[in-house]
Amino acid sequence: MSKSVTPRSKDYAKWYTDVIKLAQLADHGPVKGSMVIRPYGYAIWEAIQAAYDKRFKETGHENAYFPLFIPKSFLSKEAEHVKGFAKECAVVTHSRLKVSADGKSVVVDPDSKLEEEIIVRPTSETVIWSMYKQWIQSYRDLPILINQWANIVRWEMRTRLFLRTSEFLWQEGHTAHATSAEAVEETLKILDIYREVAEEVLGLPVITGLKSEAEKFAGAEATYCIEAMMGDKRALQAGTAHYLGQNFAKAFDVTFRDKDNKQTYVYATSWGVSTRLIGAIIMTHGDDQGLRLPPNIAPIQAVIVPIFRDDTKDTVLAAAKQLYIQIADAGVRVKLDDRDTVSPGFKFNEWEMKGVPVRIEIGPRDVEQSSVMVARRDTSEKNQIGLDVLPDSLLKLLDEIQHNLYSQAKDFRIANTHEPQNYNEFKEIMKNGGFARCGWDGDPAGEERIKQETKATIRVIEQDQDGSGMTCIYSGKPAKHIVIYSRAY
Amino acid sequence: MSKSVTPRSKDYAKWYTDVIKLAQLADHGPVKGSMVIRPYGYAIWEAIQAAYDKRFKETGHENAYFPLFIPKSFLSKEAEHVKGFAKECAVVTHSRLKVSADGKSVVVDPDSKLEEEIIVRPTSETVIWSMYKQWIQSYRDLPILINQWANIVRWEMRTRLFLRTSEFLWQEGHTAHATSAEAVEETLKILDIYREVAEEVLGLPVITGLKSEAEKFAGAEATYCIEAMMGDKRALQAGTAHYLGQNFAKAFDVTFRDKDNKQTYVYATSWGVSTRLIGAIIMTHGDDQGLRLPPNIAPIQAVIVPIFRDDTKDTVLAAAKQLYIQIADAGVRVKLDDRDTVSPGFKFNEWEMKGVPVRIEIGPRDVEQSSVMVARRDTSEKNQIGLDVLPDSLLKLLDEIQHNLYSQAKDFRIANTHEPQNYNEFKEIMKNGGFARCGWDGDPAGEERIKQETKATIRVIEQDQDGSGMTCIYSGKPAKHIVIYSRAY
Repeated sequence: MSKSVTPRSKDYAKWYTDVIKLAQLADHGPVKGSMVIRPYGYAIWEAIQAAYDKRFKETGHENAYFPLFIPKSFLSKEAEHVKGFAKECAVVTHSRLKVSADGKSVVVDPDSKLEEEIIVRPTSETVIWSMYKQWIQSYRDLPILINQWANIVRWEMRTRLFLRTSEFLWQEGHTAHATSAEAVEETLKILDIYREVAEEVLGLPVITGLKSEAEKFAGAEATYCIEAMMGDKRALQAGTAHYLGQNFAKAFDVTFRDKDNKQTYVYATSWGVSTRLIGAIIMTHGDDQGLRLPPNIAPIQAVIVPIFRDDTKDTVLAAAKQLYIQIADAGVRVKLDDRDTVSPGFKFNEWEMKGVPVRIEIGPRDVEQSSVMVARRDTSEKNQIGLDVLPDSLLKLLDEIQHNLYSQAKDFRIANTHEPQNYNEFKEIMKNGGFARCGWDGDPAGEERIKQETKATIRVIEQDQDGSGMTCIYSGKPAKHIVIYSRAY
Repeated sequence: MSKSVTPRSKDYAKWYTDVIKLAQLADHGPVKGSMVIRPYGYAIWEAIQAAYDKRFKETGHENAYFPLFIPKSFLSKEAEHVKGFAKECAVVTHSRLKVSADGKSVVVDPDSKLEEEIIVRPTSETVIWSMYKQWIQSYRDLPILINQWANIVRWEMRTRLFLRTSEFLWQEGHTAHATSAEAVEETLKILDIYREVAEEVLGLPVITGLKSEAEKFAGAEATYCIEAMMGDKRALQAGTAHYLGQNFAKAFDVTFRDKDNKQTYVYATSWGVSTRLIGAIIMTHGDDQGLRLPPNIAPIQAVIVPIFRDDTKDTVLAAAKQLYIQIADAGVRVKLDDRDTVSPGFKFNEWEMKGVPVRIEIGPRDVEQSSVMVARRDTSEKNQIGLDVLPDSLLKLLDEIQHNLYSQAKDFRIANTHEPQNYNEFKEIMKNGGFARCGWDGDPAGEERIKQETKATIRVIEQDQDGSGMTCIYSGKPAKHIVIYSRAY
């Protein structure tokens, strides 16, 4: 833990991996592209899960679990879905191993070859709609509001911890509705939950909007998303909610009898956020000392580091334990780091690296003065605080840090969002990094050329406006939409 | 929901599947042997998870997540583990699909064949110990107390919902320790947590003990388990905790530097409970009307069914809503079933099938008399209860039902546990069903012959006694152990 991270300015990608390794968030697994989420990283994921799960349940959703394995034939049932997902998949072809002839290793038993190959789920629309076909007959069976927390496999070639790994954890909601209007309403309701948790819990300012045809989910009528700006000014798609229309209902022949006894195809939505959000937290809030965690998501909100020599050890530790109880009772997730195998300085570095929002130092003089030294991770400020006001002032401080991290990130995004007046300015922005807010005539050909020339993509089409008065940044024609362009993860 | 289940006495296996389907706990998935856990079944799993997770964390364990995919070579590293787990596995051999020549389906891309085949985890000791090798250098790194909630794949030929499916959900704990004594202590601590939750939360009386060599986990020094008796008098292994000694540390070369600077292999444990516990709940408590859920685990503890005609609808529904708020405020998981598309009788059957512990009926006369009719699912008793005492008396009733279900199950086990005096009596017990408590001389040959002759296996070797005074039920020689034999799931 005495090691430090590569500065962001020197190599942002290296900085990112350094933080993950040194803060013990995750590691590479033995199979190429796989990830091990270590306890500290997983505790952040549990906090993210809790925040979303609570809101899903409050809005009437229930959790369920569908199988990992999907028959290969299912992936070709929805025409667009084939193109999007029947590509880089893990394919199971055999069901048995046997001990090799020399008894020293195991080999695949050729006799166990499966009749039809099985795909490890890259997303679950197909397997879920094959079940909805069995569960839905009448309008009385609707709506179905199901979510599942699960692992997903996509055989990515270029992987990066949390952002793009061959396996990741996510939630995927899959709902079924009697009308198009109800399904669209559900999609927007979820988009708002995604935004709310991202902003209020994870401290991630996000922009919301629609994806273009080129960027939308394979099989969706419309894809809405939350999009955030990372510390290197690139965009990260942090969550998506899809209005699927009747596409999957038609592919799996799912109809219902309505009140007038008419058979109609069911309307669908699907939506997901993943462990990618942990990557977003790292890259939004992290600095050259390591991670900075918003208090609402921090597994440890405050760490107490006692400072003593042999002759003051008993006094200081007793006071530290007393303090620990006082703070824990106030509902703060607090840790007392009373290890005697490492120095206080080592501990300071370790907890800074791990992004703990507040460090509380207590030494012999502090005990005498009934006070402690409180250090903020976000601003590095240190202040002496009296024990009499501590739990209250700590709660206030955590709240302040939560808001400050959000504000810093939002200010950063605003400062790096530009409105280019012509394509040359646009290209300059993409070279230096940042978001470009500009007009688009809606032509996918121009969008594609921009991608080829600048690597930038449309991150969102802004909702509820028509681009009136603006011109397309590429063609110069009247704009149909206002869009945000950026290079993205 | 007007359908009823096959009586247990007629066909127990059919009864079991009927309950699962009609109570909407689970369904078969599209791939043979796979299972879909429906929302009502998953809510029970969430309650089981919460009960265990809380206790794991209280005893210092942290959650993490390790990859689904294991390199094939890992499975042959621990000699015993090969025999036990390198058998019926899902094998991933390719990483890409492509659209077929006619554009109508997808086929496996032969160019995507993997260099080394990948196994979908049948259990995670190997992948976890490959990581522990990187994380453990010194005694300061120990103990590691990690748990993960995950899906597991074992390619079972004869499957049964919740009990044996090709994929299931479980938790698996994997701990690393500096000494053998500490690892054994951990194993027993977990065994006690398994017992406590099974008995106090799930209402499952269990016996605890050791497995014989023939029945223990492949790679363990010792396997402890909790074992329960199902309604057909067969045994079900409901959870296992393994002391692994240094076997996996040696297989993956994981050593640590102790305080005297000496390199020593690390000691290990692993332990798991799974969605199988839902099967145990069904078969322990269920009856010919369907499921009976212990209140501590019931997603819905009480259901309010309003009974009205057109002219009393408003009055009754208003009173029912008032009642709902009153009960929910008391901390009870309550549901108001105000559907007007089905009759009260239909609702009674549905909630009985789903095992809701208490049904509260409220009609016009009840409203007038400020009382309700309360029906217990466990005994079918109905009592009129005044609204003034309701939340308190309901809480007391739920507690009583919890204890009654446990007691009924325990009495059933005691009544069906016998101490045969000779092998003929033993065979008679195995024919009629039940547990046989008897002496064993410790000879695996006799154990194997008993299995062939009666299909019974040693469920547990009782701890802390030496069989003194008893003789082996098979050989007639002096017993080394007292064991429980039974046919099992």
